[in-house]
Amino acid sequence: MTATYRDIKSDILGKITRGEWTPGSLIPGELELAETYGSARATVNRAMRELAEEGIIERKRKSGSRVRLTPLRQARFDIPVIRREIEEQGRAYRYALVRSEVVEAPEWLRARLALQPGSQVRHLVCLHLADGTPWQHEDRWINLALLPQALAADFSASGPTEWLMSQIPFSAVEISISATAADAALAAHLDCAAGEPLLMTERSTRWNDQMVTYVRLVHRPGHRMTTRY
Amino acid sequence: MTATYRDIKSDILGKITRGEWTPGSLIPGELELAETYGSARATVNRAMRELAEEGIIERKRKSGSRVRLTPLRQARFDIPVIRREIEEQGRAYRYALVRSEVVEAPEWLRARLALQPGSQVRHLVCLHLADGTPWQHEDRWINLALLPQALAADFSASGPTEWLMSQIPFSAVEISISATAADAALAAHLDCAAGEPLLMTERSTRWNDQMVTYVRLVHRPGHRMTTRY
Repeated sequence: MTATYRDIKSDILGKITRGEWTPGSLIPGELELAETYGSARATVNRAMRELAEEGIIERKRKSGSRVRLTPLRQARFDIPVIRREIEEQGRAYRYALVRSEVVEAPEWLRARLALQPGSQVRHLVCLHLADGTPWQHEDRWINLALLPQALAADFSASGPTEWLMSQIPFSAVEISISATAADAALAAHLDCAAGEPLLMTERSTRWNDQMVTYVRLVHRPGHRMTTRY
Repeated sequence: MTATYRDIKSDILGKITRGEWTPGSLIPGELELAETYGSARATVNRAMRELAEEGIIERKRKSGSRVRLTPLRQARFDIPVIRREIEEQGRAYRYALVRSEVVEAPEWLRARLALQPGSQVRHLVCLHLADGTPWQHEDRWINLALLPQALAADFSASGPTEWLMSQIPFSAVEISISATAADAALAAHLDCAAGEPLLMTERSTRWNDQMVTYVRLVHRPGHRMTTRY
């Protein structure tokens, strides 16, 4: 039987795991590997590409591929849709709109979304709950120049994230994760003590080269983002 | 000129961005696309595979590919080697070993690394500094049953992360990110107030199906993990 790209990938991984190919060492060329495995060069190429994407090897056009000195370079975290995240745990999802207003963008937001002075934004504060317990606090700002339909949209029954997904089919984003201390309002909404350390995710979303929305999601106390390889 | 996979990918992205292909809608089959673009099916396949990996489309063997309802499903964060992270910013990296001991694994660690009672571990507390300012606090535990050479290793001049990379060529990990409050020791090491919210990264590393090391990295106050698409 001919070796599939999976066979080749797993054989190479084995060589690296067992230390036959040491970190930093040169890996045989694709033509040579294709001969070794008796397979097409494209098959070897796919195996090598996946090993490179997973951070196991490093490919260089001129000097060939090497086993990476630092095996892990990236961590991928799932970004769940909150309703699904809660319902997949068998809990009841509930949404509450805390505040809704149309305002001139404050200066910090103008800087972040590259907005002109006087730009109108829709500002929403919402709470996502699991079995009645606060799960996530959402502070959302939407650029009305780019998404004027957000002016009339009704966010009393479901959150702006789901609505935005139906409006923006593809978007580029910047995501930041940091730790913040609960202020009085967050403490009241998330049912914790003021000053408690909370994990915060911020997202700025670009659509057709303009910034369309910024959101600050503050997770419940003790929340962990976890990923496995 | 023949369309490259990049041309095809960008043309399809354009159709989705402009709303010609709406979220949830069916995308023409690969054979049909190959005809449209006058290119090989393998070329179309590569474009589609990358769009799927980036979470733009959803591929199903039987029912064909669709534009995803939820464009973004994952966030990838770079995990830098701390020395490089600091030096790439033009700052001077300095390392300090705060504590080094060989102890029986405490119960919480045994649970985490699946260790037998009485297992010996090497425990290290280190500090990574940038231009003399504390940058990251490392609390590291190494399973001596699996890595006995860690008993004699010298960590006075450089940290265990770099050493481990030379010992473990490939490994599976679990990564968790959370917010924690500085206790007295962390506050003293990271030069901040007790109770200050800090971003914490925990990693458990598996090697050949056994847990080899657990580390708790606490970042300096105000640290953000950021990724862009």
